[in-house]
Amino acid sequence: MPTLKLRRVAIDTNKENVAYLHRNCAHYRSEGFQALNKVEILQEDNGKHIIAVLNVVDGDNIIQPGQLGLSEQAYEQLSLAEGTAVQVAHATPPQSLRAVHRKIAGERLSFEEYLGITHDVVENRYSKIEIAAFLVACSDNGMDRDEVLNLTEAMVKTGERLNWGESLVVDKHCIGGIPGNRTTMLMVPIIAAHGMLMPKTSSRAITSPAGTADTMAVLAEVELSPHKLLDIVRQQRGCLAWGGTAKLAPVDDILIAVERPLSMDSPGQLVASILSKKVAAGTTHLLIDIPVGPTAKMHDQASAMRLRKLFEYVGDRMGLHLVVVITDGHQPIGRGIGPVLEVRDVMQVLNNSPLAPSDLREKALQLAGRVLEFDADVRGGQGYIIARDILESGRALAKMEAIIQAQGRNEDSIKPGQLQHPVVALCDGIVGSIDNLQIARIARLAGAPMVKGAGVDLHCKVNDRVEKGQALYTIYAEFNADYNFARQAAARDNGFSVIKSHQSF
Amino acid sequence: MPTLKLRRVAIDTNKENVAYLHRNCAHYRSEGFQALNKVEILQEDNGKHIIAVLNVVDGDNIIQPGQLGLSEQAYEQLSLAEGTAVQVAHATPPQSLRAVHRKIAGERLSFEEYLGITHDVVENRYSKIEIAAFLVACSDNGMDRDEVLNLTEAMVKTGERLNWGESLVVDKHCIGGIPGNRTTMLMVPIIAAHGMLMPKTSSRAITSPAGTADTMAVLAEVELSPHKLLDIVRQQRGCLAWGGTAKLAPVDDILIAVERPLSMDSPGQLVASILSKKVAAGTTHLLIDIPVGPTAKMHDQASAMRLRKLFEYVGDRMGLHLVVVITDGHQPIGRGIGPVLEVRDVMQVLNNSPLAPSDLREKALQLAGRVLEFDADVRGGQGYIIARDILESGRALAKMEAIIQAQGRNEDSIKPGQLQHPVVALCDGIVGSIDNLQIARIARLAGAPMVKGAGVDLHCKVNDRVEKGQALYTIYAEFNADYNFARQAAARDNGFSVIKSHQSF
Repeated sequence: MPTLKLRRVAIDTNKENVAYLHRNCAHYRSEGFQALNKVEILQEDNGKHIIAVLNVVDGDNIIQPGQLGLSEQAYEQLSLAEGTAVQVAHATPPQSLRAVHRKIAGERLSFEEYLGITHDVVENRYSKIEIAAFLVACSDNGMDRDEVLNLTEAMVKTGERLNWGESLVVDKHCIGGIPGNRTTMLMVPIIAAHGMLMPKTSSRAITSPAGTADTMAVLAEVELSPHKLLDIVRQQRGCLAWGGTAKLAPVDDILIAVERPLSMDSPGQLVASILSKKVAAGTTHLLIDIPVGPTAKMHDQASAMRLRKLFEYVGDRMGLHLVVVITDGHQPIGRGIGPVLEVRDVMQVLNNSPLAPSDLREKALQLAGRVLEFDADVRGGQGYIIARDILESGRALAKMEAIIQAQGRNEDSIKPGQLQHPVVALCDGIVGSIDNLQIARIARLAGAPMVKGAGVDLHCKVNDRVEKGQALYTIYAEFNADYNFARQAAARDNGFSVIKSHQSF
Repeated sequence: MPTLKLRRVAIDTNKENVAYLHRNCAHYRSEGFQALNKVEILQEDNGKHIIAVLNVVDGDNIIQPGQLGLSEQAYEQLSLAEGTAVQVAHATPPQSLRAVHRKIAGERLSFEEYLGITHDVVENRYSKIEIAAFLVACSDNGMDRDEVLNLTEAMVKTGERLNWGESLVVDKHCIGGIPGNRTTMLMVPIIAAHGMLMPKTSSRAITSPAGTADTMAVLAEVELSPHKLLDIVRQQRGCLAWGGTAKLAPVDDILIAVERPLSMDSPGQLVASILSKKVAAGTTHLLIDIPVGPTAKMHDQASAMRLRKLFEYVGDRMGLHLVVVITDGHQPIGRGIGPVLEVRDVMQVLNNSPLAPSDLREKALQLAGRVLEFDADVRGGQGYIIARDILESGRALAKMEAIIQAQGRNEDSIKPGQLQHPVVALCDGIVGSIDNLQIARIARLAGAPMVKGAGVDLHCKVNDRVEKGQALYTIYAEFNADYNFARQAAARDNGFSVIKSHQSF
C-alpha cells in the first residue's frame, strides 16, 4: 500500500479526529474516499494507528498531494513526527456495532457485549453518530438495572484502576445542577484533617459556571502528574485535583462529549458514568448527593428516589459502600457563583467568618458528617459534631492551607471582575424562588468559568424581604461583550420571583 | 455585535458545514466558543444565515484573526462573497428537539411535531448526532404506521412539489440491493413509447456499484436543469435524469447522509423516504419492487409482506395509486455489474440481441406491463404483451435513442476497464447460489461506480453447470490499486457457491 507523509494541521477539532487528504492525491482517487468517510491511519513499523474522519483539501496552503494531514488532537494522539510515512485506508466498522443494532432493536446486552462496545469506543472506532445511536438506544428505559451494572463494569475494565492499599478510601459526588454548591472544597479538608483518605479529583465545568477543579485552580495548581498526586495524598490524606490526567474509565469522557450537546441525561448513563469513575479511582466508600427542586436536575422526590435505588443497586454489586442523600435543590447554595466568588465563600467558611454563607457551611458539615461516619470508630449521628469541631477549631483551614501548599499555591491574586452590574428588585416583596438554570446561564454569559473573576454574587435568598430598587445580585465580568450578554439575559429574565407585599413597613 | 470577514476555506467537508475561527480572534475569546460548538453565521443586511460546526484554527496559513472561514459546501450554501462582514454566535438548539426527546421517551408524535423536526433539519439546525438520535428513536418499531404517514407528509411539505398537469404520472422504485438490476432503463423507453408520462429521476449509487443515474451517464447527460428536464419530458414523455438538482423532499438527503454510515434501514424511514420523494415529484401512480432473497434487503417473504402493507397504508393515504410487487432477489439480475457493463446489457435487450440477458429482459417486461396497466385503456393482464410488443418492434430502442439525443449524447466511447481478471470455479459442479452483497463489494472495490468501466461481468448464474477452472466472472478495473483490492476480496470469498457434482460428463 502506498504511503503518505504525515503533517500536523493547526486546526483544533476537539474530540473529533480529522484527517486531511488532498483531492489531487493519487491515493485519494484510487481508494474512492469521500469527505466524512471514516479512515484508519497506520504506521506499520510500530503499529501505531488512529481512526479519523476525512476532510478533502482543495487548496495548496493546507497540505499538498502526497501528504496526510491530521488535526491537532489527532496528531497528538498518533504521536509520530511530521514527515513520518503513514498509510491510510477505509476504517472497518467496529464489530461491536452489531450489539448496538441489537440494542436499538430493544434486546438486552450482556457484559461481554458492553465490554466490546466500550473497548471499540475507547479505541476511537466509533464515530459520533454511532455513539449517539448507542446512547439513544440505552436512554430512558433502554437499559434495565442489570445492564446498567454491565455497562458500569465494562467502563471500569476499559481503563486503568487505582489501588490505594487502604481499606477506607472515601469520596463524594453531587449529580450537579445547583450553582455555588462548592461543598467538596470544605469536605476534603475536614475529612482529611480527621485522617480519612479522600483523594478527590474533579472535572472542570462543562455546562455549569464553575466546577470544583475550576474553583480550586484559583488557589492552587490542579493539573498534577499521577506521581505528584500520589505523594500529596500520602502526605496530606487528601487533595483537590483535576481528574483529567488519569486514564480512569476513559470511555466516559468520550460518551459525555456526545451526551452533552444532545442534552441527554438518562439515569442509566448517569449512574454508570459516576460509579465507573469512582471504582476506577479506587474509592471504597462513596456519598452521593441528589439535590431536588423545580430547577434542579431531579424535579421531584419520586424521580430522586428512583435514581437513588439505581445507584444503590449498581453500587452494591460493584462492591462499593454507598450512601445516597437527597438534599434541597430549590435555589443556589452560598452566595458566589463563578470560580473567584465561590473561593471567597469557601474561605469565609474555613475562616469561621461571620460573613460566611450559612447554607453552604451547614450543607458541607452535614455531608462531611455522613462521610466521617464511614469510619467504624465514629458513632452513628456523631459525624456532624466531629466535622463542626474540625471546622471551628481551625484544623480544616490548616489542612486546606497544607493542601494548597502541597499542590502549589497560585500566587496571582485573582479578583472579582472589574465590570459590575447590580440587578435590582422591581417591587417590594419577598423572594419567592430563584431559578438555578437562569442564574447559571447569566454567570456563564458573564464569562465563568473561563474568566475566573466573572459570575454572579447573590445578595439575597428565598424568603428574604427586598425593597424595590434593592440589588438582588451583582453581575461580575472582565470583558465588555460578556458583560453586555449577561446584562441582556438578566434584563429578559433575572431568575428571581419576588412576591409583592401589600403591607408597608 | 462585532463582525468578521468571510473567507472560503478550500476544504471539502461533505454534508457537514464547518466554520473556522482563529484562536487569537477577540471574538473567539469573548464568546467562549469551543471547537465542535454549533454556531450560526449571519449576514444582517440580507438575513442570510447558516448553521455550522466550529473548528478552531491555530496557524496563520488557513485564516487570520478577524476572519470567519467556511468549508466549501458551507460557503456555497451561504452564497456571499469573500470579505463580506458576517456575525457569528452560538446557535440556539432547535425548538423541535423537544419532540425528539419525547420520541426517545417512546411517545407518539403528531404531524405538527414531525413538521417542526423536518423544518429544522432542512434549515441545517440539526447536528449529525441530533439527526442520529432522531433516527434511532424512530427506528424498528419506534414509529407506528400513522407516524410514518405523518413523517412522510412532513417531508413533502418541507420542499418543493412538482405538478405535471396530467392525471397519470407514473414512476417505479426498487428498494435496491440487487446488483445489475437495471430495469428502469428499459421500462422508461417502453412506457414513454406507449405515451404514458414517466419523468424518471434517480439517485447516484451510494452503497451499490451502480445507480440508474450513474449508468445512464455513460450514454447521456443526466444533470439537467429543471427547465430542460421539463422540456424533454413534454417532448419525449419520459427521461432518465439525476434527481439531485430538484429540491424535492430535501430533508431525505440529509437523513440519508446519517442513515448510511449507521447502516440503518428501518422500514418506516424507507417508506417515508421513497414515498415523500415520489409525491413531491408529482407521481400519481407508482410501482414498488421489493426483491426477496437471502442476500437481498428483505430476507424472507414475511418481512417483504410487512413492508408491502406499510407502503400501501401510507401510499393510499397520500393519494397515490400504488402497486407493490415482490420479486425474486436470490441473485444479481443481468450479467454486467458497474455502469459500462450494465449499459451493454440494457442496449442488448433494447436491440433484441440474442446475447441479451433473458432475466433482465423478462423482469423489465413484467414490471413495465404492470405500469402500463395503470392506463385505464389497458385490460388487466395485457400490459406484458404490450410491453413486449413495444420492445420487439424496436419502438423502445427508438424512444431510448430519442431520450439520449434530447438529454445530450455522451460522445466519449467508454469501454470496460483494461485490467481484467477471471475468477474461476475451483471444482466441477452446479452454481448453488450467488451472494449479492459480496459481488457488489467486489465490483465497488474494482472502482464502480466512480470508474465507469469498472465492475464485474458474470458468466454464469444459479443452476448453471460449471467446470473446474472455468471463469465464473471477470473483474474489470482501470487502476492497479482497485484491481488488487477487488482480486484480493474475490480470493477471500468469490461470492459463488458451487455444488460439487460426483458424476463425470
